[in-house]
Amino acid sequence: MDPTLAEISLPGRVEDTDGISAEELALAARNHGIPLEALRYDVTPLGLHYLLIHYDIPVIDPAEWRLEVGGLVSRPATFGLADLKELPRRTVRVTMECAGNGRARLAPRPVSQPWLVEAVGTAEWTGVPLREVLAAAGVDPGAVEVVFTGADHGVERGVEQDYQRSLPLSEAMREEVLLAYEMNGAPLAPQHGFPLRLVVPGWYGMAHVKWLRDIEVLREPFTGYQQSVAYRLRRQPDEPGDPVTRISPRALLVPPGFPDFMSRTRVVRPGPLTIEGRAWSGGDAVERVEVSVDGGRSWSPAVLAAPDGHRWAWRRFTFDWHAEPGMHVLSARATTAGGLSQPETQAWNRGGFANNAIQRVAVACLGA
Amino acid sequence: MDPTLAEISLPGRVEDTDGISAEELALAARNHGIPLEALRYDVTPLGLHYLLIHYDIPVIDPAEWRLEVGGLVSRPATFGLADLKELPRRTVRVTMECAGNGRARLAPRPVSQPWLVEAVGTAEWTGVPLREVLAAAGVDPGAVEVVFTGADHGVERGVEQDYQRSLPLSEAMREEVLLAYEMNGAPLAPQHGFPLRLVVPGWYGMAHVKWLRDIEVLREPFTGYQQSVAYRLRRQPDEPGDPVTRISPRALLVPPGFPDFMSRTRVVRPGPLTIEGRAWSGGDAVERVEVSVDGGRSWSPAVLAAPDGHRWAWRRFTFDWHAEPGMHVLSARATTAGGLSQPETQAWNRGGFANNAIQRVAVACLGA
Repeated sequence: MDPTLAEISLPGRVEDTDGISAEELALAARNHGIPLEALRYDVTPLGLHYLLIHYDIPVIDPAEWRLEVGGLVSRPATFGLADLKELPRRTVRVTMECAGNGRARLAPRPVSQPWLVEAVGTAEWTGVPLREVLAAAGVDPGAVEVVFTGADHGVERGVEQDYQRSLPLSEAMREEVLLAYEMNGAPLAPQHGFPLRLVVPGWYGMAHVKWLRDIEVLREPFTGYQQSVAYRLRRQPDEPGDPVTRISPRALLVPPGFPDFMSRTRVVRPGPLTIEGRAWSGGDAVERVEVSVDGGRSWSPAVLAAPDGHRWAWRRFTFDWHAEPGMHVLSARATTAGGLSQPETQAWNRGGFANNAIQRVAVACLGA
Repeated sequence: MDPTLAEISLPGRVEDTDGISAEELALAARNHGIPLEALRYDVTPLGLHYLLIHYDIPVIDPAEWRLEVGGLVSRPATFGLADLKELPRRTVRVTMECAGNGRARLAPRPVSQPWLVEAVGTAEWTGVPLREVLAAAGVDPGAVEVVFTGADHGVERGVEQDYQRSLPLSEAMREEVLLAYEMNGAPLAPQHGFPLRLVVPGWYGMAHVKWLRDIEVLREPFTGYQQSVAYRLRRQPDEPGDPVTRISPRALLVPPGFPDFMSRTRVVRPGPLTIEGRAWSGGDAVERVEVSVDGGRSWSPAVLAAPDGHRWAWRRFTFDWHAEPGMHVLSARATTAGGLSQPETQAWNRGGFANNAIQRVAVACLGA
């Protein structure tokens, strides 16, 4: 009669209901989206960056905390926080997006954190490049992947685990991949991974392991839960599926005018106004952004800010609009140098991952 | 054919559906609850305190910003931020809770921000006591209320407005009511009211007007939207109802053990463990806390931390439990010196306000 993990932790499922369950709502309350007006900041202020925490925020005493580096290396090592701060230091501005962003708009709806469009944020991360630490440890020529273990512990779909994710060695050795101990110039907040997290510019959030405690170099690809069960693009539960990796291109608008409290419909007055937004991509760079003010029937080029050296962060765009009385639907669409763009309707997958469907913002322009 | 505010901003309503709508979900995504494990901090770290923003976070240039103080005063005045910082300074630790906390558990469900239990947080607010500013302005003997206007602008239930709330003069003159420019020792974050907000220890969050720009002393009670339409305890839409004021007593547990990702069911192993939580009340102080480990059938006293001088902040409590294999429902219940306590089932009101029903935390104790 004792409960088992399988009884309190159900397999992944999808729902045909329109309404969000209390269980999904509890996740929406504890995880935080960016209020869309905060897209106006180049760097998202602390407390407005999106947050997705699988289990609990762990309690970590920085004096006791250690990072273990081992596996297929010639010099396994243990680092305290002060040790890491003596190594070369680098700051990278990174736009991070949750792989599940947009999930709640899918039908049927994958049952998990029910994001609409707001699971994104940009921060300045400071830390030691991961490759400095790997080089010090001496990676064996037979290594193929590196697995990162966080201190957050819980159960997911029946599997008890510490959160773990891996990277291919070639990704782990990129110069901008960091073991970060600062965010926006201050020590990491508890909810962002204090005292140390992995930052993998360009990848969806699940790769940026928080509360990092262990790094292990592997001879074979990692097959843990978050790698081979969760975070796969699949249509059927029994397919192996493709891994979720880099962030698909997306543009979001700073909603113009002011909102209705409940519906969030935007209100503007007739006349000229400048619309702004942010566009990003975790693969090749966004090259152009277009805006539609007629629900996607026609598109016009927006003015995309010139590259400012922050390759892994979103870029601002603007668009001059003359609002006429009536109801309007505004949208923006990013396209990369390689020609990747955003779909009008999201291709469905069972986890609700890598959604980059075009945003639709309802705007009421009142009579003059 | 031009849209009107009434068309895009519907009257208040209640829903019999079990599921949360996309509109409610959009509010849940932009407003932030405290992850319940963060109840372990005496002072909630920035980014984990609850947030409820009616409209948009306004953009305010602190160099341009001014506070106007006027109405029924002998010396109307304008203050810049530097002027306020030259006045006497005081720090108060305050537990703040949203008046709508618990709303999503009511049936029928008032349609608004769908909080479960997580709309709470504690901060150290620093600023100038409001009464210093009122005394400098010289309040007329005929004054009865003070109305506070924020810079956040929007539409609510058809009414376009800057957010405004009033206090009776006797409340406004309490020594611990602050015009706060710092939170936890740093300038206010944009989402918490930068550059200045009102802090009214003991009152629900709607009284703590953010992005404060105007204070007006009144001869008659204020009848604006947030005072006479919203934030009233009523069962029928046409009743005047009673005003929402001080925070009802409540206790919440730090959920023990570790969670299942999706259901948030807690998992513990058999044996002794110490349960902890926080209890608060905006009226008379919490005098005792009891814990139930059997779904509310029986209650035992918890150990309530001694008063620590922070009269307006929550207090920690602990309870030693020996977990036996099986499913358990844990609860805590606060009672004030005046005998106010928490109901098992919330008395329904149409706005979903001032809910303090006893929390229920499902815990699975696995076999040994």
